[in-house]
Amino acid sequence: MTQLKKAMAGRITEEMERVAVREGLSAEDICQKVREGTVVIPANINHRGLEPCGIGEGLTTKINANIGTSSVYTSIEEELQKLRVAIEAGADTIMDLSTGPELDACRKRILEASKVPVGTVPIYQAAVEALDKYGSIVAMTAEDLFQVIEKQAQDGVDFMTVHCGVTLEVIERLKKRGRIADIVSRGGSFLTGWMLHHEKENPLYEQFDRLLSIAEKYDVTLSLGDGLRPGCLADATDSPQIQELIILGELVERAREAGVQVMVEGPGHVPLNQVEANVVLEKQLCRGAPFYVLGPVVTDVAPGYDHISAAIGGAIAAAAGADFLCYVTPAEHLGLPTIEDVREGVITARIAAHAADLVKGIKKAWEWDKEMAAARKNLDWTKQIELAIDPYKAKQYRQQRNPEDGDTCSMCNQFCAMKIVGEYLGKKAEKC
Amino acid sequence: MTQLKKAMAGRITEEMERVAVREGLSAEDICQKVREGTVVIPANINHRGLEPCGIGEGLTTKINANIGTSSVYTSIEEELQKLRVAIEAGADTIMDLSTGPELDACRKRILEASKVPVGTVPIYQAAVEALDKYGSIVAMTAEDLFQVIEKQAQDGVDFMTVHCGVTLEVIERLKKRGRIADIVSRGGSFLTGWMLHHEKENPLYEQFDRLLSIAEKYDVTLSLGDGLRPGCLADATDSPQIQELIILGELVERAREAGVQVMVEGPGHVPLNQVEANVVLEKQLCRGAPFYVLGPVVTDVAPGYDHISAAIGGAIAAAAGADFLCYVTPAEHLGLPTIEDVREGVITARIAAHAADLVKGIKKAWEWDKEMAAARKNLDWTKQIELAIDPYKAKQYRQQRNPEDGDTCSMCNQFCAMKIVGEYLGKKAEKC
Repeated sequence: MTQLKKAMAGRITEEMERVAVREGLSAEDICQKVREGTVVIPANINHRGLEPCGIGEGLTTKINANIGTSSVYTSIEEELQKLRVAIEAGADTIMDLSTGPELDACRKRILEASKVPVGTVPIYQAAVEALDKYGSIVAMTAEDLFQVIEKQAQDGVDFMTVHCGVTLEVIERLKKRGRIADIVSRGGSFLTGWMLHHEKENPLYEQFDRLLSIAEKYDVTLSLGDGLRPGCLADATDSPQIQELIILGELVERAREAGVQVMVEGPGHVPLNQVEANVVLEKQLCRGAPFYVLGPVVTDVAPGYDHISAAIGGAIAAAAGADFLCYVTPAEHLGLPTIEDVREGVITARIAAHAADLVKGIKKAWEWDKEMAAARKNLDWTKQIELAIDPYKAKQYRQQRNPEDGDTCSMCNQFCAMKIVGEYLGKKAEKC
Repeated sequence: MTQLKKAMAGRITEEMERVAVREGLSAEDICQKVREGTVVIPANINHRGLEPCGIGEGLTTKINANIGTSSVYTSIEEELQKLRVAIEAGADTIMDLSTGPELDACRKRILEASKVPVGTVPIYQAAVEALDKYGSIVAMTAEDLFQVIEKQAQDGVDFMTVHCGVTLEVIERLKKRGRIADIVSRGGSFLTGWMLHHEKENPLYEQFDRLLSIAEKYDVTLSLGDGLRPGCLADATDSPQIQELIILGELVERAREAGVQVMVEGPGHVPLNQVEANVVLEKQLCRGAPFYVLGPVVTDVAPGYDHISAAIGGAIAAAAGADFLCYVTPAEHLGLPTIEDVREGVITARIAAHAADLVKGIKKAWEWDKEMAAARKNLDWTKQIELAIDPYKAKQYRQQRNPEDGDTCSMCNQFCAMKIVGEYLGKKAEKC
């Protein structure tokens, strides 16, 4: 039985209890939210050693780090190192997006090594194998795709991106509307190519019940992918994107009826002032299903800095109610990230998530900031570094740019405002 | 005569014409905005070789880079190198915040070397010299302070931060309200110390007309400093901050009546969901005076990444109408920035400004993003790098992480969505 089915039966699971402790909420609350579908706990029954993580309304904003080989960078060892670095840096979940060789082995090793929930996009493996087997991605059969899904579910994958909303109707709207960047979702592009080639409906849509029965069997949380997400600002919030979202909303209901946990993926590339509207739309059209946004980046012109562009969009999205942020690394749009890029991407996404958690009124988020404020006021540098979101980098800066014994910093030194005001207003910050 | 006085007399200046060309607006428009006070053109009559820059409503969002020595890092040469790097990276203005030795020489060399407007905070020099001369900052006399202001104005400083709104009334409100971080503005702390020590009103407030007459003589744009800006999220948007803003609004009117150009500085540390309110308040209380925000950072816990935290706050502020963003570097709260930090700070602030310019409907901002989108769609890597906000970093990533001759990138390679969809929807992006 899935977490959702158990919640519907009024049963509080161990996973719900552990999520409750982590969030500082009651297990009854978590159970209620899972029942309503506003929170998911991706926890495949076959993922051993998993530390369960809740994603959704009322919880802290979670962040995901994508790792995985490509046909250019094929080292599984390196991806396992990225996994460790990402988790150490604070990633709440990992997605294995490998498209290199030995996909089964790679996924199994990631699942073994990961205490956090692991997600995949099964159509990647289906596409890679179709290219190997038939020499063409579009030669893939629906059967091939479902076999991959079942295999990955059996292996213990906790959540899967499935682009069920890329329907013939949506592609028609895409053609009618016209876009600069058309489709930038890999999974979306494979399916679109397949559908146009075969002149057939999306098998993930047509056989959605089959997908549900696999998900139900292993308690895989479905992450309904946004194959039509805008790939540039000019394409944002257009008719194909919103048409797909309407369909995803309908599929959310079908998933819930089947007892399958479900969340919805979102853009992408979005102008800053459209981000909130995108969140409102998802929450309304998809009946409060957790929203998993990919960035969004708020400009197209910042390759090399897309982690920052995504932090802007992600913070705004999460403050407006998005629940789950996919990290973006500095390598986005330019190549496969390095280990250092992964680390930078995770910390940056955490900053966005935390900025939003303050807005969401998460109590421990406020406590953290207040403790830092008091440490600053008290010129307590040890505490400041300890409280930093990345103590390692904060310490590096502190050590490199300051005399060893100073109580101020090399920017102001004896002209430190904290110090001067302290003398005249004569007080230390209270411990928070 | 100041730009404002000329605008009031209906005269279109060369500076207005040059600003108009840069912004793609008519000189009449610029003149009108300067007359209304919603745009300033900081252009000291003694700053030779200046390329004038407009700041305010309807123009692109501008960004400032702070440089300057401290008593720990005293090299003027290094600060001049930061100046060059900042301008190359796209800073619209520079502030010399030096507190090291030889302040006059340092400022003069920066003014000589800078084609962009240069700002200062004169009370820094007054404080440094008071410490030298009398052994204490608070021993500074009002006369000392005004002499420094006059000297800096004569040297050609284009805009000056003056904390005129730190009045006894405001300090009373600060004591009454209570804060974790009290005052974090250096200038604000010097003045507060001085006022509490002498039990006297702020000379910059009491003798505001004297300040105006100096500013009017050299056409120095006053940047009314926010001495009470919050230094942590918990202190944001509180009564001392807003009390000071009310006073600054009154001073804006007095400056305009005297024909002196004026803008207003803002926070600081602000929760994401209070940023817009801060902009609205400034625009209302200060009658549309250009708003110059310092970040704002949206969390206290990100030392080492405060450029990113500030990009989140800055983008939201500028999208809501802030006109001018002070950059924040990764060294913020930890030490004086290095040259590399300055570069990173400028590019990051430009991303925030540009994300906001898209929202502000700046036409050339949209053209830029659309061109990049088309270059991506067409897998035109040369163009993508050329259009990147930092072509240098984009090129580095591209070269390091990709085979030399590929038309895709090492993340997706043959599974590139752009390529696959291009085959089936069969079109290239139009040139924008």
